[in-house]
Amino acid sequence: MFEPRLEDRFSFGLWTVGCLGDDPFGGVVRSELSAVGLVELLAEVGAWGVNFHDNDLVPVDASWDERNRIVGEFRAVLDATGLVVPMATTNLFFDPVFRDGAFTANDASVRACALSKTMRAIDLGVELGASTYVFWGGREGVESDASKDPLVALGRYREALNFLTGYVKDQGYDLRFALEAKPNEPRADSYLATTGACLAFIETLDDSEMVGVNPEVAHEHMAGLNYMHQLALAWDMGKLFHIDLNDQVPGRYDQDLRFGSVNIKAAFWLVKFLEDAGYAGPRHFDAHAYRTADWDDVKAFARGCMRTYLILKDKAAQFNADPAIQALLDGINAQDKAMSKLLGSYDPKNAQTLKDHNFDRAALAERGYPYEQLDQLTNDLILGARE
Amino acid sequence: MFEPRLEDRFSFGLWTVGCLGDDPFGGVVRSELSAVGLVELLAEVGAWGVNFHDNDLVPVDASWDERNRIVGEFRAVLDATGLVVPMATTNLFFDPVFRDGAFTANDASVRACALSKTMRAIDLGVELGASTYVFWGGREGVESDASKDPLVALGRYREALNFLTGYVKDQGYDLRFALEAKPNEPRADSYLATTGACLAFIETLDDSEMVGVNPEVAHEHMAGLNYMHQLALAWDMGKLFHIDLNDQVPGRYDQDLRFGSVNIKAAFWLVKFLEDAGYAGPRHFDAHAYRTADWDDVKAFARGCMRTYLILKDKAAQFNADPAIQALLDGINAQDKAMSKLLGSYDPKNAQTLKDHNFDRAALAERGYPYEQLDQLTNDLILGARE
Amino acid sequence: MFEPRLEDRFSFGLWTVGCLGDDPFGGVVRSELSAVGLVELLAEVGAWGVNFHDNDLVPVDASWDERNRIVGEFRAVLDATGLVVPMATTNLFFDPVFRDGAFTANDASVRACALSKTMRAIDLGVELGASTYVFWGGREGVESDASKDPLVALGRYREALNFLTGYVKDQGYDLRFALEAKPNEPRADSYLATTGACLAFIETLDDSEMVGVNPEVAHEHMAGLNYMHQLALAWDMGKLFHIDLNDQVPGRYDQDLRFGSVNIKAAFWLVKFLEDAGYAGPRHFDAHAYRTADWDDVKAFARGCMRTYLILKDKAAQFNADPAIQALLDGINAQDKAMSKLLGSYDPKNAQTLKDHNFDRAALAERGYPYEQLDQLTNDLILGARE
Amino acid sequence: MFEPRLEDRFSFGLWTVGCLGDDPFGGVVRSELSAVGLVELLAEVGAWGVNFHDNDLVPVDASWDERNRIVGEFRAVLDATGLVVPMATTNLFFDPVFRDGAFTANDASVRACALSKTMRAIDLGVELGASTYVFWGGREGVESDASKDPLVALGRYREALNFLTGYVKDQGYDLRFALEAKPNEPRADSYLATTGACLAFIETLDDSEMVGVNPEVAHEHMAGLNYMHQLALAWDMGKLFHIDLNDQVPGRYDQDLRFGSVNIKAAFWLVKFLEDAGYAGPRHFDAHAYRTADWDDVKAFARGCMRTYLILKDKAAQFNADPAIQALLDGINAQDKAMSKLLGSYDPKNAQTLKDHNFDRAALAERGYPYEQLDQLTNDLILGARE
Repeated sequence: MFEPRLEDRFSFGLWTVGCLGDDPFGGVVRSELSAVGLVELLAEVGAWGVNFHDNDLVPVDASWDERNRIVGEFRAVLDATGLVVPMATTNLFFDPVFRDGAFTANDASVRACALSKTMRAIDLGVELGASTYVFWGGREGVESDASKDPLVALGRYREALNFLTGYVKDQGYDLRFALEAKPNEPRADSYLATTGACLAFIETLDDSEMVGVNPEVAHEHMAGLNYMHQLALAWDMGKLFHIDLNDQVPGRYDQDLRFGSVNIKAAFWLVKFLEDAGYAGPRHFDAHAYRTADWDDVKAFARGCMRTYLILKDKAAQFNADPAIQALLDGINAQDKAMSKLLGSYDPKNAQTLKDHNFDRAALAERGYPYEQLDQLTNDLILGARE
Repeated sequence: MFEPRLEDRFSFGLWTVGCLGDDPFGGVVRSELSAVGLVELLAEVGAWGVNFHDNDLVPVDASWDERNRIVGEFRAVLDATGLVVPMATTNLFFDPVFRDGAFTANDASVRACALSKTMRAIDLGVELGASTYVFWGGREGVESDASKDPLVALGRYREALNFLTGYVKDQGYDLRFALEAKPNEPRADSYLATTGACLAFIETLDDSEMVGVNPEVAHEHMAGLNYMHQLALAWDMGKLFHIDLNDQVPGRYDQDLRFGSVNIKAAFWLVKFLEDAGYAGPRHFDAHAYRTADWDDVKAFARGCMRTYLILKDKAAQFNADPAIQALLDGINAQDKAMSKLLGSYDPKNAQTLKDHNFDRAALAERGYPYEQLDQLTNDLILGARE
Repeated sequence: MFEPRLEDRFSFGLWTVGCLGDDPFGGVVRSELSAVGLVELLAEVGAWGVNFHDNDLVPVDASWDERNRIVGEFRAVLDATGLVVPMATTNLFFDPVFRDGAFTANDASVRACALSKTMRAIDLGVELGASTYVFWGGREGVESDASKDPLVALGRYREALNFLTGYVKDQGYDLRFALEAKPNEPRADSYLATTGACLAFIETLDDSEMVGVNPEVAHEHMAGLNYMHQLALAWDMGKLFHIDLNDQVPGRYDQDLRFGSVNIKAAFWLVKFLEDAGYAGPRHFDAHAYRTADWDDVKAFARGCMRTYLILKDKAAQFNADPAIQALLDGINAQDKAMSKLLGSYDPKNAQTLKDHNFDRAALAERGYPYEQLDQLTNDLILGARE
Repeated sequence: MFEPRLEDRFSFGLWTVGCLGDDPFGGVVRSELSAVGLVELLAEVGAWGVNFHDNDLVPVDASWDERNRIVGEFRAVLDATGLVVPMATTNLFFDPVFRDGAFTANDASVRACALSKTMRAIDLGVELGASTYVFWGGREGVESDASKDPLVALGRYREALNFLTGYVKDQGYDLRFALEAKPNEPRADSYLATTGACLAFIETLDDSEMVGVNPEVAHEHMAGLNYMHQLALAWDMGKLFHIDLNDQVPGRYDQDLRFGSVNIKAAFWLVKFLEDAGYAGPRHFDAHAYRTADWDDVKAFARGCMRTYLILKDKAAQFNADPAIQALLDGINAQDKAMSKLLGSYDPKNAQTLKDHNFDRAALAERGYPYEQLDQLTNDLILGARE
């Protein structure tokens, strides 16, 4: 029943199922799978799409011939499996050259190198079919605020993004950018720390209509924020270009856990939001299996991400159809028409009426709201205990 | 040496020094001072300005005559002491009527009541000289996402702000709005949880040029964010209309502690930012004294906020004049001219040059940055141990 | 099916269902119910027990006659409804006299007052049948570490607890103490911040066998800790004397939300732990309804706490009976007998054998563990999506 | 003036200055220094001691001869530089064999391997002079609570420590154990998450007198706890056997930043505590330089750790000698003798007197405490702005 289908648009990054289990305190534990092998694994578990950083696919020092051979093999496995490449991105964080940042590095040569690498990576992504290009500024930040003027850094960030939308337009690519926020790690403090900050910053760009966001569950949870609310703001602004699904306990290192494996209820609200709003983009899982996992367990991990999404999607539909829940919502959302019509756009007469109106605050405050009841019905529904 | 002067533009809310020491687990501990008494206290400690919520000054059920008498007395003490009112705001959180929100409440009558109350409060603020009007949506949020559709809530929030800028223009007031973010408390999750989210949301308003932000140290620290970076984004967008200074340990209840009393270094960077950038607005302290304080200690608290600001301002100037620090910064910021000129606005030729350039990443990566040294010099300077 | 029964031992504090919806930013929203009314409400929703702080029942300034009248009425409603009083505690945080602490206050008179109040409150609790007495040191902490020497404070805390176990023994009461940890709020930093700290501190008390812990979900979650792990440590030490169930997002103000309403999975593990271990004490809910609730919704809140517990208890039994889950666990827990027998108590020969053994680390490291699979089966089970 | 001297007992782990700048998102950036080179570096910057994990010094697969050659060279450089080895520890986290834990692993062979490795590492540490042996259970935890029964895990942990104290006694080593807590990372939830939990757990060990704690600033800050308070509890119990100094923003990945570089005030209180209490053990810095650092900046980092400690130690002495601060403290700590003598050990007569005493709570509550004033004087002192 909860088997993934192509129309679910489930995608994974090569780096997600391809993670070898290393972490800051331990070396790799799984033997490497090639990009081709990873695509086959994704096909086996039922995914629709695969995303990559340039160097997930092509080693950073590969020759042009090597690069083309790899791309050819990758394209072949895509053809064979039917997987698509909806999104690509640039690795601007692993190489030591970016130790002080990429677009915001203090060294002009490093900034230039980052631009160069990104243009090539955009070419690669577009060549393989990507229509969304993600920017996560992993190294765009500081450990000490002595080291960088944040206004200069924001200026450099803007300059780089403007340059790159210029490049995309010049090349005639059909490609949109999606900025991904993160509050910290690996830098002590990242610039563009939240999805909100990204949405604001986008408005200052030359080609802001080409740029949206890629909110990640873990990154908002790290800051203790309600992820779904950030989604809603992005959607409200027409900027939800892509999404990174995973899970995370607030106030910790970046965990990238299996979707829905920590906070089932938060996952429920976000799936419900996406489905109700009609989000039509990829459901991308930016997560990885536990260090304890072997390759079978990696598959269980990937299947689990999709299965949980589908179970929650089904529950979201149940919620919308549940008579008791909907009756409560109808009561909650009933509006006093006389008052409603004074609201809306500013009108001097309405304003005066409102100012003069003698509100019976005590009476209005008497009204209770059955939110505990409603929330418990939601819990029951999530637990499969509604009938 | 570190005595406050009028040109320092230090302001306090009536609710800050006026706090009676109650908290969620305890009743009031200090005998109430009148608004007039609080202004006298602020004058005594050397403040320049005083801000208020409508009901800090005028009780929510006061008659028109009572209101005018109070305003008259308040104006008299302002005249007597020379204090000004740079900012005012509305209390849309204390009264039970707003238990489910104000602008985003599910009940149209409550939303209407909130608009009505705010228009009257704007009149009051303007009458007393305020040029900035702050909106903190204390109740604009949820405990359960079952209770409100966030898109509807954002729509109502926008509608209310559009209505109110309409009102301000209609009245011919010279008044700007400043939105204040907070991630949670008293609601489990507040809409517009971060300064970034506010900056984004502002771009969707009808009169966005009239609306900026009022970032608060504690509110960004609650989410573990680097406050100064949020200031920088707001400044970069021309939206830093007001500021709330205090202190807070990350990941806790809203503490509103004495400015600089928790994280001296974070306070240093924010003061340095404001002074270097040339921020000319009020330095408003939105903090309150410990529950253990008596009125003498409340004065010590208020004096401490200002004194710490001035000490840190002096240290910021020292930083800018310190030869060892500046020499390090000169080295860090030296730019390769050949590379710099390829950056900047998009240019097809430069783009091609960059793409074709064979970057010696290993050589570039060799470069170390003396940031530990620089940060330690900053620490020494903060500790008064530079000479 | 998930209706509470007496043998479930569900209890609520008077202060939980009796909360009037006030918070740091808003006044009371519900009209007060008497203690008698609250017991009737608890009986109506199916609770087994009711707990109280002294002043939840008897006003702090009540005369002896008044106190006895109240106790009589309370006893009558207990008799009428069949509810029992398993636990009682002292309010040492609300009154201004405790603004600087109770047992750890700097003022000897305040410490004396706290002891006096606690002895009277113990008498009251015992009179009404309590067999567990909880100590939450709400004001035992600091805002500034300048204000108190922590060694002196710990010494005072110990002295007070020793005094009070002395009192209990002297009175011949059959009463155990349970210490409740909390990291912060209302003080910036509380002493005995975690259940671990309480368990350690208990070992330094004169009558440590009389003293255990009362771990609270919200208080451990505030510090981002795995609550169930703290339960396990307490249980392992024979110190799980009582428990406070509710819910809480990490890194926030103390939320005291409906049990299981935030993190369903964490709630599942804790219920499973209690049921598997055979914890026989009360299941006490230290939570309160949303500010938006009316009295009907308060009842829905209380019913929801118990219902969720029972649903999760049922799921814990399912987990223990699920063949696929148990098969995975059998595989995971299979032990190499030859190795097992070298472990256990220290034995010089075994030690030498182990030191000399040439472990094939690479081979051992090859072994993967199906924890993603197992965790996903758990998620499916929680979601009601197994079979 | 603030130059390190041998009597300051400053030590660093080989892994601290030896860190090559890699992190979860990036590869190594600094060329490796040998253990000998690192000791020379530490001697150059003025350290007194050097600590190590077994594999910091001897590769995990070294032959016995190789091991002895390395130890000989290491001893030679210790002799040449005068550095001592006060502490050693085992790396039970990096090797894939420990992916599911070491002492608490589900596989008996892995647990055996961990014991074997630790005995050999203890031998190595003792051979080089260590008198303290640290246990940080980096992998002792879970991602999913489905995977391990916490009671079984705690039992295994205890069994391992009992085995190892048995070994130490059997060998006649003069060695004490120090347990190091950490809430999470690299595991989602670590057992023994806080120093409090360690202190409690120690009481359940066979040779508890041989076992104390090694509290780390960053690890307690990760959980948002007041580090100094945890130190105080450990000290109060006679269990402060070692200490790990560094810095960390609450609610984040493990940062291990330069001592005092984040929260200067928290660092001040902890230094003051150690110095006032008379802690005579090593001042160990478990920190590492930024990824941006080159080897010169690594030296600046190490020097900065020690310098900040010494500056704060000097300030702690100033605090104790400051007449204004001490006058405030005298007032705060003045005790009512009549009341004081009723406190202390339980006495039935005193108890009765206290119960009968009619406390004038209102009068006692009137007393304010000059804690804002005191805390601001502390801030001034830290900032070098007293006189």
